[in-house]
Amino acid sequence: MMNPATALPVAVTMGDPAGIGPEIILKAFAGDAPLMQGCCVVGNLSAMRRALERLQAKGLGGLSGWTCEPVASIGEAIHMSPRQVPVLNVTSDAPFEVGVVSAAAGRMAADSVTWAARAALRQEVGAVVTAPLHKKALSLAGVPFPGHTEMLQSLAAEHLGVAVSAVPVRMMLSCPGLRTVLVSIHVSLRQAIEAVNVANVLETIQVVQRSWPALFGKSPLIWVAALNPHAGEQGLFGDEEIQVIAPAVARALASGICVQGPFAPDTVFMQALRATGVDKPDVVLAMYHDQGLIPVKLFGVEHGVN
Amino acid sequence: MMNPATALPVAVTMGDPAGIGPEIILKAFAGDAPLMQGCCVVGNLSAMRRALERLQAKGLGGLSGWTCEPVASIGEAIHMSPRQVPVLNVTSDAPFEVGVVSAAAGRMAADSVTWAARAALRQEVGAVVTAPLHKKALSLAGVPFPGHTEMLQSLAAEHLGVAVSAVPVRMMLSCPGLRTVLVSIHVSLRQAIEAVNVANVLETIQVVQRSWPALFGKSPLIWVAALNPHAGEQGLFGDEEIQVIAPAVARALASGICVQGPFAPDTVFMQALRATGVDKPDVVLAMYHDQGLIPVKLFGVEHGVN
Repeated sequence: MMNPATALPVAVTMGDPAGIGPEIILKAFAGDAPLMQGCCVVGNLSAMRRALERLQAKGLGGLSGWTCEPVASIGEAIHMSPRQVPVLNVTSDAPFEVGVVSAAAGRMAADSVTWAARAALRQEVGAVVTAPLHKKALSLAGVPFPGHTEMLQSLAAEHLGVAVSAVPVRMMLSCPGLRTVLVSIHVSLRQAIEAVNVANVLETIQVVQRSWPALFGKSPLIWVAALNPHAGEQGLFGDEEIQVIAPAVARALASGICVQGPFAPDTVFMQALRATGVDKPDVVLAMYHDQGLIPVKLFGVEHGVN
Repeated sequence: MMNPATALPVAVTMGDPAGIGPEIILKAFAGDAPLMQGCCVVGNLSAMRRALERLQAKGLGGLSGWTCEPVASIGEAIHMSPRQVPVLNVTSDAPFEVGVVSAAAGRMAADSVTWAARAALRQEVGAVVTAPLHKKALSLAGVPFPGHTEMLQSLAAEHLGVAVSAVPVRMMLSCPGLRTVLVSIHVSLRQAIEAVNVANVLETIQVVQRSWPALFGKSPLIWVAALNPHAGEQGLFGDEEIQVIAPAVARALASGICVQGPFAPDTVFMQALRATGVDKPDVVLAMYHDQGLIPVKLFGVEHGVN
């Protein structure tokens, strides 16, 4: 589909071509051609063709008779014939082996995201959907970002002509009945604890508050998870709740944000899912990656959106 | 019910009398009197009577006409009249206020657990069911344990006449389709990371392996969760998987234990729930409290057993 609000095409980044991205994308085109009309793969034409041949050789994906066709501009994607997957070639060709992590594949994945993000920032595409990349391959390719979130942040800062620190971003995961925004993401658990400071927690709350109206047409009710078991049990098991999270929540409240917490991590997601009406939070702030991703993946990985 | 295997009564500890324990217990008696026949509350008679009066005054719990009756020994509980809740008084009376954390209430809660655990170790009761206690109240009462698990460990060591370290214990949470055993429980997240060392992870695997046949009549298939996001992504986000968890798993495997991992924390519980047949793990080892408790509480807090 095109973005219905803008009538602009949707860029689908190829992901790491040694991984499952190209195959997922091809199966999506064959699985729901009307939905995918107006979507354009952004990546490497020969990598996409190799993936198509693999699937066709195995008779998988309902891709019999499909081809990958180059487009000269992403706007051409809107006018493809049936059974044609439009591919905008934005990367160099380089040898890589399917199923093997490599710098070459990581470079193609990164170049696809970079092209798509810049096009979105220039408002030439209506949305970007990303296929999976491999963080180790990115690292081997010398890409100084662990994943999509940080790459998009850097590209947005470049577009705006400001420092990366001036464009605070957070990752949000969404599944039916539950949204969670993470204070930190792709760092070790040790580093994640260090990232739980007043500035970061407060900034996370503020990013949510600022972003919500454009995304959902309202101001959010925000619940904040604690860091320690039982929210620290009044300081018996860690004091980050007392020293960091409660003060950050208090400062956000004082600025007029509807925010509550910190709540014990093991029950806050359950309570958020069960809450109804005006008491139901729009989003739960998680203090680290797995605190937020365990419940979202349990409850709706198939319907989840990052 | 009595324990059907032993025909011994079941001890139900009162929990913290300033909290919800007494009310939960009374509602359980009124809610399913045949099931509760043979159960005996172990705690404080006047605290139980105050809770009963509170519920009766509000017309809650279907407790009209019920009384709390003292028993001189737990064996008498088997022969109670209808609408009588047997209470074995094992604590001193001391003033406390409902809803307020206090040393007095913490002391009563601890004394109830101590009595029940010793009775179980002497095989005078067939099982112990515990109502909630308050960890801060325990601490105020000078009890040197943060919760039930550690108290039971200490009492078992005392009964056996050995050091506490000679009775390694782990907490297991169970809900329909998922069991998890925790490497550490009631410590801060910082301390929990420090507890992820080869000795502790290996001991957790060994405790599971040794305990399983008596509990479930078979040897377990054990999955082990990682500590860091994406299982550390091959060392990019922390190296505990490489330095600690994988070596502990390898040593356990070499000793003949069926154990696999470490697996990424955000998907291991989802995969365990979905797995079927011989591939389905009996238990997932969690590296810290909330890693294991978030999924168990989401999936089955009402049917969960600690």
